[in-house]
Amino acid sequence: MLDRLAIHTITTKSWDLPIAAAKYAAAGIKGVGVWRQWLDGRPLTESRQILDDHGLSAVSLVRGGFFPHLSPEEKQSAIDDNLRALDEAAAIGAPQVVLVCGAKTELPLSESRKHIEEGLAACIEHAKATGVKLSIEPLHPMYADCRSAINTLGQTNDLIDTLGSPPEIGIAADVYHLWWDPDLKKEIARAGQRIIGFHVCDWLTPTTDLLNDRGLMGEGCIDIKGIRRDVEATGFDSWIEVEIFSDRWWSHDPDDYLQKIIQAYQQHVQ
Amino acid sequence: MLDRLAIHTITTKSWDLPIAAAKYAAAGIKGVGVWRQWLDGRPLTESRQILDDHGLSAVSLVRGGFFPHLSPEEKQSAIDDNLRALDEAAAIGAPQVVLVCGAKTELPLSESRKHIEEGLAACIEHAKATGVKLSIEPLHPMYADCRSAINTLGQTNDLIDTLGSPPEIGIAADVYHLWWDPDLKKEIARAGQRIIGFHVCDWLTPTTDLLNDRGLMGEGCIDIKGIRRDVEATGFDSWIEVEIFSDRWWSHDPDDYLQKIIQAYQQHVQ
Repeated sequence: MLDRLAIHTITTKSWDLPIAAAKYAAAGIKGVGVWRQWLDGRPLTESRQILDDHGLSAVSLVRGGFFPHLSPEEKQSAIDDNLRALDEAAAIGAPQVVLVCGAKTELPLSESRKHIEEGLAACIEHAKATGVKLSIEPLHPMYADCRSAINTLGQTNDLIDTLGSPPEIGIAADVYHLWWDPDLKKEIARAGQRIIGFHVCDWLTPTTDLLNDRGLMGEGCIDIKGIRRDVEATGFDSWIEVEIFSDRWWSHDPDDYLQKIIQAYQQHVQ
Repeated sequence: MLDRLAIHTITTKSWDLPIAAAKYAAAGIKGVGVWRQWLDGRPLTESRQILDDHGLSAVSLVRGGFFPHLSPEEKQSAIDDNLRALDEAAAIGAPQVVLVCGAKTELPLSESRKHIEEGLAACIEHAKATGVKLSIEPLHPMYADCRSAINTLGQTNDLIDTLGSPPEIGIAADVYHLWWDPDLKKEIARAGQRIIGFHVCDWLTPTTDLLNDRGLMGEGCIDIKGIRRDVEATGFDSWIEVEIFSDRWWSHDPDDYLQKIIQAYQQHVQ
């Protein structure tokens, strides 16, 4: 059953939106995690039409966030970009914008974290207005320097608590970022219904690049089925999103890769 | 003042123990983190003599650990190796063996963690007999696949609690592994007198290799002075150990590198 399988467009990087939509649909896939670059160069209504024509749902728009800033102008520009992302998500029918919250090497982590909290707060009203959720994706601690200062699920839960648990803020739980955490099971249970996105791939040994050496599910050491079980124990029954950055797989034949993704999903996720 | 500066022999990888000892002493350095490979090929008494002759203290022996195993033979072999490490440390006058606790990709993390707890318990008596402490070094989460399933200071504190807080077990706090942790300040305070080692280097942006691309203090984004302040608030006033794995620095002229280490220590640690 592929009913819950979604693929992020970045996973099959060489395909633009029309090709990806046609290929995914032909393979029986029904959900797409749409990266914003895949919307460039055509009206949003046209992108929406491409998805509709293939019976595909946009399950997430990727990505907003990057709130830490070095000037008031950067601050406003980051907020504006997130408001635009919410509009784009609404236009293509995506229920959530996935947030890579950001970090600046020039700032203390505590400062980046404060900027993230303020940035999120500034976007909640528009999230409510658009009906699109802000989905915080805690990133692996190896990205704390310049990608995200939000690095564990526990920290994400604390942050959402601090913001007053607004229903407009959810969590995208990606096994790649979270699998190592000794508190993972506990914090998944604590997150409960906040978890609105579940991303899968695998951790390779050795990992030869910090960003673009993710594995296909089953190629690595992550207990994907175990984490999925814990996530579903919260009541989560939505899409399972395959998000793989891999120079190795990106250089592979994409049609064959898509088949391997489906097989890996069936064997190592379901 | 270089009174508290120690250098791990791996940092100046091209120098064997006699050369490193001579070079460190000539530069005014008084402490050495001795990697076990640097003891190979001569009696322990002779290595001790080399250090003594140069007025150097062995501040730590690196490394024991690697407790997770796939067979009873591997289990025993790991324990035996840690007992030997304690003897070696005692022989060269090192007050602690630094432990990289280990992880096996073939095992669930929970199982690797159980093996670590059991392995530590099996070594406490010999630690007491030798007067050498077992110093758990929590490793960055990016090493949870095959190097260590102990990945935060909080988890380390929990583990030591579980073992009954024996005085034979301490913690080596390395800024490279811990800097990103939102709970760091709190867990350093909780660790208190357990912290018996403090390792410094820096996190580079971008980091091009998961293992051997550490920065010299000041080259990266870690708030070393801030972490040092928190560690010293526990009463810690012992050695500050420079431990840098870097293909880039290893290919640099080692004499010049040693001077740069001293400058970096003075500017970015003290």
